[in-house]
Amino acid sequence: MSVSQLSQTVEEQPFFNVIQDRRSVRSYDPNVKISQEEMNEILQQAALAPSGANLQPWRFLVIDSQELKQKLYPIAFNQQQVIEASAVIAVLGDLEGYKLAEKIYGMAVDAGYMPAETAKSFVERYQGLFASMPPETVLQKVSIDGGLVSMQLMLVARAKGYDTVPMGGFDQAKFSEAFDIPERYAPIMLIAIGKAANPGHPTLRLPVEDIAYFNEMPKE
Amino acid sequence: MSVSQLSQTVEEQPFFNVIQDRRSVRSYDPNVKISQEEMNEILQQAALAPSGANLQPWRFLVIDSQELKQKLYPIAFNQQQVIEASAVIAVLGDLEGYKLAEKIYGMAVDAGYMPAETAKSFVERYQGLFASMPPETVLQKVSIDGGLVSMQLMLVARAKGYDTVPMGGFDQAKFSEAFDIPERYAPIMLIAIGKAANPGHPTLRLPVEDIAYFNEMPKE
Repeated sequence: MSVSQLSQTVEEQPFFNVIQDRRSVRSYDPNVKISQEEMNEILQQAALAPSGANLQPWRFLVIDSQELKQKLYPIAFNQQQVIEASAVIAVLGDLEGYKLAEKIYGMAVDAGYMPAETAKSFVERYQGLFASMPPETVLQKVSIDGGLVSMQLMLVARAKGYDTVPMGGFDQAKFSEAFDIPERYAPIMLIAIGKAANPGHPTLRLPVEDIAYFNEMPKE
Repeated sequence: MSVSQLSQTVEEQPFFNVIQDRRSVRSYDPNVKISQEEMNEILQQAALAPSGANLQPWRFLVIDSQELKQKLYPIAFNQQQVIEASAVIAVLGDLEGYKLAEKIYGMAVDAGYMPAETAKSFVERYQGLFASMPPETVLQKVSIDGGLVSMQLMLVARAKGYDTVPMGGFDQAKFSEAFDIPERYAPIMLIAIGKAANPGHPTLRLPVEDIAYFNEMPKE
């Protein structure tokens, strides 16, 4: 199958199949590599996700060297997928993401999407807003945005025939130290990605009446 | 078009169309209602998202009464979509989500997915882990999970022909007070949902080299 045929097949995956087929996979074929080009394509499509003020405060450290996966293994509590998956993507939140506001809104001006004056006032407003926010509020905001982009990343991967597993359980402080992550970036989650060697276990969800309420919260 | 035909059309939406067509929409047709049944279906599909330890700590308060949308309007900084959209969904994070571990893992045992002994040890482990976590860590975890489910919610909505806009900017404290949200639930984001009256503005994303790194973070 040529690359263009494969690509067309992928484009035609029905949306609801993708969300139903996505399942956390913990057993991977260790021989499968994902090229840097394809990984960039996955990340670019993931990054079509929305974010607060469109500041896109997500950064991705793709760990695909065998040596570094070994280094990550104990930090991620010896989970086998860290070694076997094609890569582990560390999703980081940029706590100073507002510093990119000028670039992002400048791109919108250059594309003719926004008058320069509007962009200037947005940039000033967001820079002021984010610079004066308490650190815990900034962390919560980048964590939410990190969740948004991570979900889209896992779905894009599935639509392209890959599997993933999100890992919230890892030692964030040790991770930042071992991988020289500047303080500016908060680790949000690790996502292992590759081709499943064994399917993920089925899991169940709470009935909708346990999670959805209309106009009023139930009394405790 | 009959409901079953519409439903089939929806099932066939290609995944990549959905992620490319999703755009933040701020102008809605105020005459469009979404039935409670359809809203529940959207939320159930959104909740197929993964979460830490599968604890599903998301709760949804669907605000679709006109009176309550008016009450929400100033709390969400007078954004017109609050009034015009069919509903605003408040995504909440359950800070005591571990209390549902027994129910969730019990369901897995009943379905034959897991031996009772394994379930019991998971439940004990997660209850111990979450109950001893610092509050800011719990908040970060439910914020990430809230981001995951919110992304899937917005995509499910788009695949069904609806539009959305995520709103991170609202007064969380006033919201919790006005809507009698128990302290156990942290507001994560508001999502307006409905049929677009006007398309969303196009927005741009940072080039992939600004967000993705391989094996090593760039020097500051």
